[in-house]
Amino acid sequence: MDPTTWTLTELAREIRGGHISPVEATRASLERIAASDLNAFVTVTESAALDRATVAEREISAGRYRGPLHGVPLAVKDIFNTEGVRTTMGSSFFADHVPDHSATAVRRLEAAGAVIVGKTTTHEFAYGGTGDRSLSGASRNPTDPTRITGGSSGGSAAAVAAGLVWGAVGTDSGGSVRIPAALCGLVGMKPTFGRISTYGVFPLAPTMDHVGPLTRTVADNVAMLSALVGHDPLDPYSVDQDAEDFSRSVARGVRGGTIGIPSEYYFEQIDSEVRERVQAAAATFRSLGAQVREVHIPRLHETFQAQRLTLAAEAFAVHAERLATDPERFDSRVRERLLRGEPLRAHQYVLAQQLRQQARTDFGHALRELDVLLTPTTPVAATPLGAEEVTVEGQSVKVSAVIARLTAPTNLIGIPSLSIPCGTTRTGLPIGVQLMAGAFDESTLYRYAMAYEQARDQSAKAELEQEISS
Amino acid sequence: MDPTTWTLTELAREIRGGHISPVEATRASLERIAASDLNAFVTVTESAALDRATVAEREISAGRYRGPLHGVPLAVKDIFNTEGVRTTMGSSFFADHVPDHSATAVRRLEAAGAVIVGKTTTHEFAYGGTGDRSLSGASRNPTDPTRITGGSSGGSAAAVAAGLVWGAVGTDSGGSVRIPAALCGLVGMKPTFGRISTYGVFPLAPTMDHVGPLTRTVADNVAMLSALVGHDPLDPYSVDQDAEDFSRSVARGVRGGTIGIPSEYYFEQIDSEVRERVQAAAATFRSLGAQVREVHIPRLHETFQAQRLTLAAEAFAVHAERLATDPERFDSRVRERLLRGEPLRAHQYVLAQQLRQQARTDFGHALRELDVLLTPTTPVAATPLGAEEVTVEGQSVKVSAVIARLTAPTNLIGIPSLSIPCGTTRTGLPIGVQLMAGAFDESTLYRYAMAYEQARDQSAKAELEQEISS
Repeated sequence: MDPTTWTLTELAREIRGGHISPVEATRASLERIAASDLNAFVTVTESAALDRATVAEREISAGRYRGPLHGVPLAVKDIFNTEGVRTTMGSSFFADHVPDHSATAVRRLEAAGAVIVGKTTTHEFAYGGTGDRSLSGASRNPTDPTRITGGSSGGSAAAVAAGLVWGAVGTDSGGSVRIPAALCGLVGMKPTFGRISTYGVFPLAPTMDHVGPLTRTVADNVAMLSALVGHDPLDPYSVDQDAEDFSRSVARGVRGGTIGIPSEYYFEQIDSEVRERVQAAAATFRSLGAQVREVHIPRLHETFQAQRLTLAAEAFAVHAERLATDPERFDSRVRERLLRGEPLRAHQYVLAQQLRQQARTDFGHALRELDVLLTPTTPVAATPLGAEEVTVEGQSVKVSAVIARLTAPTNLIGIPSLSIPCGTTRTGLPIGVQLMAGAFDESTLYRYAMAYEQARDQSAKAELEQEISS
Repeated sequence: MDPTTWTLTELAREIRGGHISPVEATRASLERIAASDLNAFVTVTESAALDRATVAEREISAGRYRGPLHGVPLAVKDIFNTEGVRTTMGSSFFADHVPDHSATAVRRLEAAGAVIVGKTTTHEFAYGGTGDRSLSGASRNPTDPTRITGGSSGGSAAAVAAGLVWGAVGTDSGGSVRIPAALCGLVGMKPTFGRISTYGVFPLAPTMDHVGPLTRTVADNVAMLSALVGHDPLDPYSVDQDAEDFSRSVARGVRGGTIGIPSEYYFEQIDSEVRERVQAAAATFRSLGAQVREVHIPRLHETFQAQRLTLAAEAFAVHAERLATDPERFDSRVRERLLRGEPLRAHQYVLAQQLRQQARTDFGHALRELDVLLTPTTPVAATPLGAEEVTVEGQSVKVSAVIARLTAPTNLIGIPSLSIPCGTTRTGLPIGVQLMAGAFDESTLYRYAMAYEQARDQSAKAELEQEISS
């Protein structure tokens, strides 16, 4: 019995049933972390984790079960403040920074009884989709450690995908949860803007920063999101939306539902294997009884450019003082990117925000007649560490320039978007399919994702059985 | 019987009762407009108005009464597109501009049966609080035609205050409805951002542009707002909020309610007569049974500065091309102001938006324990036309720099704000008191305003009787 191969939901059931104790689970996690060479963790809080696991064990024995995260080892991206625990933001500026408070998201996980075992590697200041520029070095992809995890929440993804923990939180301002989820074969959710408090999370672009969970399965993701959401007066962008049961409609399935495939942008300039797998996912949905049809959403390239401009301007606003006084302490690539925000003019930002408002209307319009939109999560699978370019459809493109192309639009718009694994390349690298729904409609994303996950796993099982029998 | 001395509500009653016809009312309006020398109107649509009045007359005779605006002559600021009717924006750029469609607000008034008699003078491109820089010249204050109306909706205010029409619409991006309302002795409402569609209204600062009604009484204002509100898919900022009866709680009065007086900013550097009258208004509310207490709202000066920066950046974005190609066609003062937006950097605008979000939280916090906030509308009463400076508390200040100081914060925040007359200076110039409430709570503003209006009119009547008898 190796509990690290279980899903979060399975572990929770075993903990609740008394078949495994939180301390055992935590020890198993800590051992795997120690043995791992993926550079997933910046800091491991071994003794605090064991203390917390002991408390969880006592509470559960005493019948005070808090829910599916109780006693479950989780990890937190090193950009969330953790009281008394070093929080580096992946940057030398914060190499020795020990916050005096925890981010609201961390406090919510702890309130749900989770055992946080440590802080995971982040791209410096979360400003990069590759996950390889960080004070503590690049995180490595569990499927192939010579490849990137994707970022910026690369350590969180590596930790969950390699079975070091049962779930992790990341942040996503242009795709930083969904990209590493796709590249590492996980479920990654960027919920509706304002759903999860960003209080105590180091800002990248405050109007587009989202906290989100990375897990191995959809059910695991539901469990984490349920614990994370809720209004927080400490976050000015937090929305006052009631908590809800995100899995309430899962049993309904997708029969009779409608999926939209954008006819432009999302399927252009993407790797052919990615296209094939995502189209196969669409076919699976069709076989499950959903209608799949093309939809036209205007101005998508402009929406992406508006997201890039917004990101550049807001990130520069966050770091202007550090850039002026101590530029050399930044990673050179992150500095280069940050400085792109410097010459931007106010009216350019204003025009980008007008496009943002228009894009909200455009997506809202498209989604009025659909349940979800379906696209690839990334244009390519995980690229080799150090490779700055990748060939897509015969053209060489910069990885850093294209990796967030398909995830970034919904950061600008704020609607929920989920990445779920949809198979691999012929060499075994994970590929993700992205689902998007209207604001506050995470439940529909989970309903579609769970139906797909089930079908995918059944067909994989059937294929395996056929292989064995032939 | 001179119907132009009636309020809109009185005229509506008489029209409905068949005692005056829409055509008679329209003729009375057109005659007064022709005789007026306030430069309130840019364009008078005499024959179209008479045609429309004739239609209204027929409908009402046939028993198809549409509501309190039916057959009532109204005016529209010359920044709202009107199909087939010249719309100048107060600028030589649009001297001969004839739109092929009407603004949604205009269409809503027309759908309510209103008779639009013409287009009113606006400060060029609505960018000024004084109402004196316009293609068609300055609008003049009916109380003293050597003085400004305030702006930018100066012509609308002059037209209503002088009895040329029974109501008018203006726009308000920093106070442009409330300022002329205060300076001309009218009720002026800037509703919640997004409540009234701005489709077809020439933009000044799209995230702060509001349409609002100017009327002689609160009841008149309720009638106009009720016709104007509603979701409009053509306006990306339009909110999907149900229409409601804004006067539903008026009968409740204000006994037991709570009014907050900001302890900083709003009562600083204001004219002593303005302070006295506004404090007297607060005393009236106390006599009506409302509790009045000081409240601290942080960062108000910074909120004003953030509004100024947001306005400058967004206005420059609107006019950048015209400024580059044809700068001389702008009024020199308006150009000077527009060019202040040019050097602004994107991250400065970003920081102003963060302050905006903070200010929303701060005002929301203050209003949680209050019904309304009460402040002066403007720091001074109407200044002489051409006077660039005014002396306040012994200090000489620029009129253009201070006129919007007390109205602008809620343009940034978006909460509803109403100006209502609260007496005059010793020389008879009108003074306005401003009430602000939480988002979508226009009803509470009207409830307070109506209670005050009633008390004010009764006390004026009593004073008059005393004067006569003594």
